[in-house]
Amino acid sequence: MRTVGVVDTTFSRVNMGQIAIEALRALEPKLGIERTTVPGIKDLPVAVRRMFREKSSDLVMALGMPGKAEVDKVCAHEASQGLMQVGILEMRPILEVFVHMDEAKDDKELAWLARRRTEEHAENAYLMLFHPEKMVERAGQGLRQGFPDAGPIAEP
Amino acid sequence: MRTVGVVDTTFSRVNMGQIAIEALRALEPKLGIERTTVPGIKDLPVAVRRMFREKSSDLVMALGMPGKAEVDKVCAHEASQGLMQVGILEMRPILEVFVHMDEAKDDKELAWLARRRTEEHAENAYLMLFHPEKMVERAGQGLRQGFPDAGPIAEP
Amino acid sequence: MRTVGVVDTTFSRVNMGQIAIEALRALEPKLGIERTTVPGIKDLPVAVRRMFREKSSDLVMALGMPGKAEVDKVCAHEASQGLMQVGILEMRPILEVFVHMDEAKDDKELAWLARRRTEEHAENAYLMLFHPEKMVERAGQGLRQGFPDAGPIAEP
Amino acid sequence: MRTVGVVDTTFSRVNMGQIAIEALRALEPKLGIERTTVPGIKDLPVAVRRMFREKSSDLVMALGMPGKAEVDKVCAHEASQGLMQVGILEMRPILEVFVHMDEAKDDKELAWLARRRTEEHAENAYLMLFHPEKMVERAGQGLRQGFPDAGPIAEP
Amino acid sequence: MRTVGVVDTTFSRVNMGQIAIEALRALEPKLGIERTTVPGIKDLPVAVRRMFREKSSDLVMALGMPGKAEVDKVCAHEASQGLMQVGILEMRPILEVFVHMDEAKDDKELAWLARRRTEEHAENAYLMLFHPEKMVERAGQGLRQGFPDAGPIAEP
Repeated sequence: MRTVGVVDTTFSRVNMGQIAIEALRALEPKLGIERTTVPGIKDLPVAVRRMFREKSSDLVMALGMPGKAEVDKVCAHEASQGLMQVGILEMRPILEVFVHMDEAKDDKELAWLARRRTEEHAENAYLMLFHPEKMVERAGQGLRQGFPDAGPIAEP
Repeated sequence: MRTVGVVDTTFSRVNMGQIAIEALRALEPKLGIERTTVPGIKDLPVAVRRMFREKSSDLVMALGMPGKAEVDKVCAHEASQGLMQVGILEMRPILEVFVHMDEAKDDKELAWLARRRTEEHAENAYLMLFHPEKMVERAGQGLRQGFPDAGPIAEP
Repeated sequence: MRTVGVVDTTFSRVNMGQIAIEALRALEPKLGIERTTVPGIKDLPVAVRRMFREKSSDLVMALGMPGKAEVDKVCAHEASQGLMQVGILEMRPILEVFVHMDEAKDDKELAWLARRRTEEHAENAYLMLFHPEKMVERAGQGLRQGFPDAGPIAEP
Repeated sequence: MRTVGVVDTTFSRVNMGQIAIEALRALEPKLGIERTTVPGIKDLPVAVRRMFREKSSDLVMALGMPGKAEVDKVCAHEASQGLMQVGILEMRPILEVFVHMDEAKDDKELAWLARRRTEEHAENAYLMLFHPEKMVERAGQGLRQGFPDAGPIAEP
Repeated sequence: MRTVGVVDTTFSRVNMGQIAIEALRALEPKLGIERTTVPGIKDLPVAVRRMFREKSSDLVMALGMPGKAEVDKVCAHEASQGLMQVGILEMRPILEVFVHMDEAKDDKELAWLARRRTEEHAENAYLMLFHPEKMVERAGQGLRQGFPDAGPIAEP
C-alpha cells in the first residue's frame, strides 16, 4: 500500500487538508493517508519531513494559503525553499499546493480555487505514485491546477 | 516531561522571552523550559540548534523584533531561512515569533502586539506538543497570531 | 555506456522532453536515455536527484517553461536553487533548460525557442560527457542557447 | 582557555580585524585569539568554517564592509547566508559585524561606526562565551551596535 | 605542490580561464593548474566541487561574465550561492571572479576589466595559498579587483 501525507495550516481560510483527503480517497480508496496541521506555511517543511520519516509517506501534499502583503510573499518564498530542501533530502516528491490570497477576486472565488487546485494536485499525486507513464503522456500540455489550462503550442 | 526552548534577542525592544515563559507556564506548569538570549535575529538559528542538541528541547520558540529599514527586511529573511534549515535538520518544530517594528502604529501597539503574538504562539506550542489533534480541528480556520483572526471562508 | 536523464513538466506548453531525446539520439545513437515528467519546475529537483540515484544518469537535462507573472519568476528562482543543490550533492552536471514565456514575442517564437535552446543544450550535454576538451576550446566565445551567440570580444 | 576567531577583509576600508583583537584583549587578556584575512565578504564563510575546524575557535567574529551599489547588497546577502550556514553546521556562534558603506554620511563617520560596532560586538562575544546569563538580563533592551540603542518599550 | 583549479564558461565573451592560467603561471611557475569549461555560471558550482574532489585543487577560481538583463542578475545570485555552498562543504577557498557586462561602458573596457580583475584575483589566490600573512597585512586597505582601489580611511 502507498501512503500520502497531507499537511495543512490553521492560517488558511479553507480546510484544504480535508479537501485533499476526500479527493485522494475518491481516486484510490485503498490509499494510506496521514494528516497533520501546523500554524502557518513556514511550519510545513518540518512537518513534511516528519511525515516521510515517521509515517513512511511516499509523497506529501503541502497545502497553504499565503496572504497578500509583501511580508507574506517573502514568507511563501521561504516556505517553498524549505519544502524543496526537504524533498531533496528525502528524495521523495512534495506537491506544494499554495493558493495566494491575491489570486482570487473575492472570498467565493478563493474558496473555489483552493478546492479546485487541491483536487487537481491530488490527481497529480495519484498519477505520480501509480501511473508515472501517464505523466509523461501529459508532458508539454500546458496544464494548470485551478485556473484553466494554457494548453500546448502546436509546432508548425 | 516535554521541554520547550525559548530564544530571544537583546535587539528586541520588548522582553519577548519572558512573556513566552510566563505564557507557557500558565498553559502547563510542569513544562520544562530552557532559555537563552542572543544579540539579534541572525544569531537565533545557531542558538536554536543548540537548544535542541544541548537542552533536548522538543520545540523551540524563536522570538525577535526586526527593524523597519530595508536592510532589516533582508536580515529577517536570512534569519527565517536559517531557522527553517535548523528545523529541517533537527526535524523538530520551531515557532518563529517575529514582530516587525512597522506592523504597529506606535510603541504602545508594538508592545501589545509582541505580547499577544507571543502568547498565541505559546498556545500553538502547547497544542503541537500535547494535543496535535486539536491543531487538525483548527485547520483552515484563518487563525492569526496577534491581530484578529481572518476566519474561515464558508463554502457555498 | 553513458546515460542522460531527461526531466520535463506538464506545465510547459512544448514537449521539451521529446525534443531533448531526439536531439540526444541524433548526437549519439548509443546513448542511454531515461525520462520522467513532473507537474511543474519546482518538482524538478527531486525528480532529477532520483534520476541520478535510481537510473544512474551521468548528467540530467532539467527542462521547463516558467510563466510571465512575478510569482512565476520566484518559482523559477526556487527551482534553480533546488537544481543547484542537487547538482552539488550529487556532484554531477545538471543542464537547466528553462524557456521563460516572456522571452518570446508570440507562441510561434516560443515554440521555436524551446526547440532551439533544448537542442543546443543537448549538444552541451554531449560535449560535456564525451568531449570535455571541446568545451575548453569554446571558452570565452560568448555562446548562447536559443537566440544568436554574443560572440567573443577581440582583445586589442 | 576559550578562543575567538577574527576574520576580516582586504576590501574593507578600515582594519576591523585589528580593532576586534584590541577590544577582545581589553575585555579578557587571557583570551585565545586567531586571525585571518580574506579578499571580500563572500570569502568569509569558508574562512570562518576553517577557524572552527583548524583553530578550535569557540566563536568567530566575521567582519566586513559591504559597498553601496545594488550588487554589493546582493553580495552582503549571500555572505550572510553563507555565514549562517556555517554557524548551523558547526553549531557555534558567529557574530557578523558588517558596516554598510551607506550607513555613514562621510568617511569619518564610517571609520567611527566601524570601530564602535566592532567594539560592541566584541563585548557581545565576551558575554556570550563567559557570561551568557548577562545576555538574558539584556533581553528586550533594544540594544544596537554602533549607533545609539533604541531602548526598551515600557509596558503599561 | 599546490594546485589551483580554473573553471570558466563558454557564455563569457572573454577567455577568462586562459588569462587566469597565464597570471597564475607568472606568479608561481611550479603551481599545479587544472582547467575545465562549462556552459554558464550556474554550471560552475558542480564543476568546482569536482575540481576539489577529482583534481585535489587547494583553491579554485570560478570565472564568469553575467549578462545585463534582470534574469541574468538572478542567475548570478544563484551561481554565487552555489559556489558558497561548495566552499562551505569542501572547506577550501573559491575565488568568484565575475565581471558583470553592465560594469563596463563598452566592449573594450569589458575586455580590459575581465583581464585585470582575473589577474588581481590570481594574485589573491597566490597569496592565500603561499603567503596568508601578507593578506593580513592588507586587511582594511580598501582593495578592489579591476577598478582602482578605494583605499583605507585614515583614523583621526
